[in-house]
Amino acid sequence: MGINRRIFLSSMAVLPALSGVLLPSATQAQSPMPSGVLPSWNDGPAKQAILEFVRSTTDQGSSKFVPPEERIATFDQDGTLWVEHPIYSQVVYCLDRVPALAETDPKLKDVEPFKTVLSGDREAIAKLSLHDLEKILFATLTGMSVDDFEAEVKKWLASARDARWKRPYTDLIYQPMLEVLQHLRSNGFKTYIVTGGGQDFVRVYSERVYGVPPEQVVGTAAGTKYGYQKDGTPFLTKEPKLLLNDDNAGKPEGIHLMIGRRPRAAFGNSTGDREMLEYTGAGDGARLMMLVLHDDAQREYAYGPAQGLPETKVGTFSQELYDEAKKKNWTVISMKNDWKRILASES
Amino acid sequence: MGINRRIFLSSMAVLPALSGVLLPSATQAQSPMPSGVLPSWNDGPAKQAILEFVRSTTDQGSSKFVPPEERIATFDQDGTLWVEHPIYSQVVYCLDRVPALAETDPKLKDVEPFKTVLSGDREAIAKLSLHDLEKILFATLTGMSVDDFEAEVKKWLASARDARWKRPYTDLIYQPMLEVLQHLRSNGFKTYIVTGGGQDFVRVYSERVYGVPPEQVVGTAAGTKYGYQKDGTPFLTKEPKLLLNDDNAGKPEGIHLMIGRRPRAAFGNSTGDREMLEYTGAGDGARLMMLVLHDDAQREYAYGPAQGLPETKVGTFSQELYDEAKKKNWTVISMKNDWKRILASES
Repeated sequence: MGINRRIFLSSMAVLPALSGVLLPSATQAQSPMPSGVLPSWNDGPAKQAILEFVRSTTDQGSSKFVPPEERIATFDQDGTLWVEHPIYSQVVYCLDRVPALAETDPKLKDVEPFKTVLSGDREAIAKLSLHDLEKILFATLTGMSVDDFEAEVKKWLASARDARWKRPYTDLIYQPMLEVLQHLRSNGFKTYIVTGGGQDFVRVYSERVYGVPPEQVVGTAAGTKYGYQKDGTPFLTKEPKLLLNDDNAGKPEGIHLMIGRRPRAAFGNSTGDREMLEYTGAGDGARLMMLVLHDDAQREYAYGPAQGLPETKVGTFSQELYDEAKKKNWTVISMKNDWKRILASES
Repeated sequence: MGINRRIFLSSMAVLPALSGVLLPSATQAQSPMPSGVLPSWNDGPAKQAILEFVRSTTDQGSSKFVPPEERIATFDQDGTLWVEHPIYSQVVYCLDRVPALAETDPKLKDVEPFKTVLSGDREAIAKLSLHDLEKILFATLTGMSVDDFEAEVKKWLASARDARWKRPYTDLIYQPMLEVLQHLRSNGFKTYIVTGGGQDFVRVYSERVYGVPPEQVVGTAAGTKYGYQKDGTPFLTKEPKLLLNDDNAGKPEGIHLMIGRRPRAAFGNSTGDREMLEYTGAGDGARLMMLVLHDDAQREYAYGPAQGLPETKVGTFSQELYDEAKKKNWTVISMKNDWKRILASES
């Protein structure tokens, strides 16, 4: 059904007004549910941990029963819900935006790191430091109205393609995790994305792609400024003022700011998710903490020290995190062994 | 049913764990709905505006139909959902906290404005400037763990009483507005509180009192800091670092940060709500903007320039706001003429 879905996605991209109306059926269309829940999961401790958590927290007779309004589950995005390797999709978006930025602000053409990006020298771009990337992110993610930003991201998502799969980035989401989101929601859980990525960026497609509405996306966020157009129409402009750096300790801090409840379940894949899982696990009653391990070099990627592989610029599953997971009984999901299928767009 | 409700409230305060489980029935218990919706509203343009907005936005055949996921309604709290005059309840809480604060930090006893508050001199306290009050707010709302803060507020709410009605502050909520919240929710709207008050403060009682869960409370918010206790248990400490000043232009900015959608309906009562109503009204399709006018000196209070009365330290309904409302067809709610009943706790 990959083709149908691609047609569906691109049509959604040009018909954003419909996305809301179509969402319920659309979301199911993305991942048909054969008989039984979690059909793309192999039997094993990971699948059992999810099924047992949902069963016990929704059974009125269970000592682990959780009232519906307290059923909050948080999911990291990059590397947990969709492919993050070899580079975050949002970083690609920001690099792609630099030429347009240089058009409106020509002096950037002679300023690093913009000069390097405009040179098109892939090797040099790959060598840019995180500090350089931060400069580019701030420059490309701020300065425009929130409405213009949303329109730009929609346009980019409709045309940009991943180098390996030759598909839109929003095709590169993990079918098994879509099934977890749906299983939790169908059991009264509110599912949130808690990402180090840009909150406004992820909100553009979260409802269409994951069935997670914008108000349930917590991410790295900059401030906005309220103002008026010449005709008096009010609008919000994205400001280069960081309000929430939603990674590492920023994740529990962001969860408190935006949700105000401690999650019952949390899913991640890297050291950036460590504090979110610790905070979730520190609450009483039933809790579920899971980490996705990228150990499938053939069907996706294998990376990180826990794999005895070199670190990368994307989320790192360190040996230390692996040890903490074992110690605290967090469940490690092996993409290679626990998942029958990886991408939702591959049938 | 005032007494039943007071018993209910105090029992909820000491049994917070139950509040979630009991919420659905409890909320209804707070405000019985006689036949028909909005029973505490007199027939008139205000009641008609609400009924017509809900009818047209939920009728699939209407050109004003709004898909369920876009049904967002935002409510100011002080003066819109509960009594704010003569002083915000949260300010009373902060003043009440000063002695405990001085116990843990004795040098405050000789420092203004704390010295004045500790003197108990009501006249001098009433004369404190907004800047003084801000100092007290920051000192009393930060520095403790988020869990300790929640416990302190719960304790205070259970014992503190309003000077005029001799009831808990959470009794002083407007029955007609509770009915609007419920009518919107029963028609698929997500109801949010968007308050200049402290987000963490309002979240302590919003679910129990208004049926609005913590994650749907947007308010003035300070940062928190993630750390570990000696035994390694993680916790969040409230920091004196302002992230969102959720008043005036801060309201649309806060709505974008925390919700990420433009509201379809917005309710306020003062100049602090002006930008929220402007932002809501600037969207296309059906929109509802309403302002509560405090013009009932007998049953509640009458204040503000629009009443030809002096300004106060609480929300001001200026003549300028009144004129903008008329110009933009925002509906002004007259407490005196539109409401049969004022407080939910008075039958």
